[in-house]
Amino acid sequence: MSKQVKAWAATSPGKTEPITLTRRAPDDEDVAIDIKYAGICHSDIHTIRNEWRETTFPLVVGHEIAGVVSAVGKNVTKFKVGDRVGVGCMVNSCRQCQNCHDGEEQYCTSNLVLTYNSKDPKDGTITQGGYSQYIVVDQAFVLSVPESIPLDKAAPLMCAGITMYSPLNHWNAGPGKRVGIIGFGGLGHMGVKLANEPDAFTKLERKFDIIINTVSAEIPLDLYLSCLRRDGTLIQVGAPSDQLRISPHSLYIHRIGVHGSMIGGIAETQKMLDLCGEKLIFPEIETIPASYINEAYERVMKSQVQFRFVIDISTM
Amino acid sequence: MSKQVKAWAATSPGKTEPITLTRRAPDDEDVAIDIKYAGICHSDIHTIRNEWRETTFPLVVGHEIAGVVSAVGKNVTKFKVGDRVGVGCMVNSCRQCQNCHDGEEQYCTSNLVLTYNSKDPKDGTITQGGYSQYIVVDQAFVLSVPESIPLDKAAPLMCAGITMYSPLNHWNAGPGKRVGIIGFGGLGHMGVKLANEPDAFTKLERKFDIIINTVSAEIPLDLYLSCLRRDGTLIQVGAPSDQLRISPHSLYIHRIGVHGSMIGGIAETQKMLDLCGEKLIFPEIETIPASYINEAYERVMKSQVQFRFVIDISTM
Repeated sequence: MSKQVKAWAATSPGKTEPITLTRRAPDDEDVAIDIKYAGICHSDIHTIRNEWRETTFPLVVGHEIAGVVSAVGKNVTKFKVGDRVGVGCMVNSCRQCQNCHDGEEQYCTSNLVLTYNSKDPKDGTITQGGYSQYIVVDQAFVLSVPESIPLDKAAPLMCAGITMYSPLNHWNAGPGKRVGIIGFGGLGHMGVKLANEPDAFTKLERKFDIIINTVSAEIPLDLYLSCLRRDGTLIQVGAPSDQLRISPHSLYIHRIGVHGSMIGGIAETQKMLDLCGEKLIFPEIETIPASYINEAYERVMKSQVQFRFVIDISTM
Repeated sequence: MSKQVKAWAATSPGKTEPITLTRRAPDDEDVAIDIKYAGICHSDIHTIRNEWRETTFPLVVGHEIAGVVSAVGKNVTKFKVGDRVGVGCMVNSCRQCQNCHDGEEQYCTSNLVLTYNSKDPKDGTITQGGYSQYIVVDQAFVLSVPESIPLDKAAPLMCAGITMYSPLNHWNAGPGKRVGIIGFGGLGHMGVKLANEPDAFTKLERKFDIIINTVSAEIPLDLYLSCLRRDGTLIQVGAPSDQLRISPHSLYIHRIGVHGSMIGGIAETQKMLDLCGEKLIFPEIETIPASYINEAYERVMKSQVQFRFVIDISTM
């Protein structure tokens, strides 16, 4: 049956506040999850502030979810009560298009259901995210968290982790490839600092094969593109509101590419989690109580976080 | 010995006019070519008008050159007097960097010498292009024109042909790949027409794997990117003066890429010429006398050409 739980929502563009949220009853395919931790992603802030102009209020955000299974539908085979699990940026997709078939559900061409602010085909409501005590998600979109990963550190892997892993994987970062990453936390203050030091770009000219841009603000892309070798690629994973501005010369001069990449598929996310579990690769986090969310947003905007805020849901 | 020949040059930004040009004496590696035809490329117009703000005046443009060998240096093994040959956008490169080693001389990181408006390492002068009766070029940058290709139709293959062949080749256009080309002559009036018909983009949504943009003017790229399938690529070969403006969303929503591509390598150009010779793939051209060059430019700018002007050098 449906359940009333505590959550933090934005009722209008700006801040979050405590509300009571109703979660649907799990269907046969659903996993019910007691959320333990939820990471704060820059997308949460964009959404809460309606910067992408598509937020349906009131809304609970949060798509870096880690918790423990509290109930399962009768057809659920992948999980059992007590399992440590995670949920990332999506909770459903059409499962029929070519992209879904290819395990690239994040690029579903028909009906990608995001963890918050999407229409949920299961009950017609707007999906509500992880800043809450409890969530119900189809088993196909639930991830297993390896025992070696503490749940608080597992949370940011669900979005931040896969967002970086997927392009590194897709563009074959590995031995022999020189990889640069623009942005070093929240607003990429390191990237911006570099951009103020023109000498740095002279020294780095044509040095990289892959550059991943994590910065959610406008940076002088042409300068970064000059650091790529022939056939190199800059991959945009940050999501600034403004258009990217790129000189055609920066692209054709060395057959340079600019790509976008968005999170990763479910199987790929599981692969990333298993790798992090095996190699003990965890994010650096600062755990906060729910009452600190709005202040945390301010600090993210000022790049005053090393490197990810994670909400302790027990404080809700 | 050096030679005085007729040519058409721009002495200041704007128009071309007849001049007398001095060509250096061929060195041991050089091929001397009696030019028969020279194509008019949009880049010629950009350069003559100094739109890229780097033209050294006076300048003879033209980098779609077809002619006949009239003399060869003593080390020249690839060509003999009477051979039908072509010269494209470049006449030398460093020949030592990784890109030159890879046969991608057009991406030379050290010293790419363009057919016009570059400093020529052989004599320190500014290179002068194909709107002239005669040119001297190192054998390594001279192409062989198959017997089956008329020389007038060979000229546009040297730039227009390789500029399209190279990305189709590099991105593996072939059976199963859906390829779109934006621009259908000079200024890509077809592309612009399409852009004025929003319905067209709805119908073409996610239909292509590769789109090549030949348009040298600003077009609404986000609309075109919506026609690409997951992992699809838009390849920019046109060279507008303004920055490209692209929404990050257009890229990350389906892992879309935007690449640049610039002509092609020498070996690749020869491969393209051989293919055109074998399959009888020729451009559609309008042959004009030298006195018509300035008017031809006006018609190119108005898209009143189907599809390439070629100057008959015998009229000079």
